[in-house]
Amino acid sequence: MKLIMAVIQDKDSNRLSDALVEHDYQATKLASTGGFLKAGNTTFMIGVEDKNVENVMTIIKENCESREQLVAPISPMGGNADSYVPYPVEVQVGGATVFVLPVDQFEKF
Amino acid sequence: MKLIMAVIQDKDSNRLSDALVEHDYQATKLASTGGFLKAGNTTFMIGVEDKNVENVMTIIKENCESREQLVAPISPMGGNADSYVPYPVEVQVGGATVFVLPVDQFEKF
Amino acid sequence: MKLIMAVIQDKDSNRLSDALVEHDYQATKLASTGGFLKAGNTTFMIGVEDKNVENVMTIIKENCESREQLVAPISPMGGNADSYVPYPVEVQVGGATVFVLPVDQFEKF
Ligand code: NI
Ligand code: NI
Ligand code: NI
Repeated sequence: MKLIMAVIQDKDSNRLSDALVEHDYQATKLASTGGFLKAGNTTFMIGVEDKNVENVMTIIKENCESREQLVAPISPMGGNADSYVPYPVEVQVGGATVFVLPVDQFEKF
Repeated sequence: MKLIMAVIQDKDSNRLSDALVEHDYQATKLASTGGFLKAGNTTFMIGVEDKNVENVMTIIKENCESREQLVAPISPMGGNADSYVPYPVEVQVGGATVFVLPVDQFEKF
Repeated sequence: MKLIMAVIQDKDSNRLSDALVEHDYQATKLASTGGFLKAGNTTFMIGVEDKNVENVMTIIKENCESREQLVAPISPMGGNADSYVPYPVEVQVGGATVFVLPVDQFEKF
């Protein structure tokens, strides 16, 4: 048994939880408070058999991997037209930091 | 030293924390966000000496074990009388998922 | 790799996160719900290389250690003047409970 602690971005949270449910993994979602370091992240706590660790890692990677995304420009509202960029910009989104912890004992009551 | 991570239902949370305090165990309660998988759960983080692990497991079991409970029927409010059940129904409540993690080092500052 | 779980008081939270950022450590802050045991605490989850564990422990100690603080008396508002203490009182603030957990596998996606 292992306990997987995965810190991911909020925007990937629903997608990851759907994928875990679909593959019959049980997870608990811990709230991270906003405004800290990486704002808007969420921590998933997932208990898995040793043999399923790699499968869960793949599911996390598929749903949360860091990637670039085109963001449409926002037109300057009475603002600084000098800094206005009239074409979409690539931003980095997603990403996951994952710790696999050994478990000495596991019980369900 | 072990770190016990116990995911329990919100409704058993006060009872469990009272029982832990009464037995002189220190615990921290982490907020789980609602609406996910098992909605309305709470994660207790309890640091214990190896020799006390089984005692804490017993306390968790006694206060959080999954059990059936009779729920009074709710009369249909301008609703579908066809699906109305006029007698109490047994529902499953409670339950705990508990991970005991090894601890390499423990400090209090 | 180790995962450090540090339970500290809310009032030391910003100071600790600033110090961790300054020293290039990545941390995630988990919300603790109020009113439980030690109300107003926060749990930091910090992934570190084995060789950096002691440095992070020192940073936590420096920023969160339990200490005494003088608190100005509050004048009794239509209250019990008998219990009014007209001079500053020393109260215990801060404190940290820290668990260092072994990590079997660590991934960043
Ligand atoms: Ni699949
Ligand atoms: Ni007892
Ligand atoms: Ni320093």
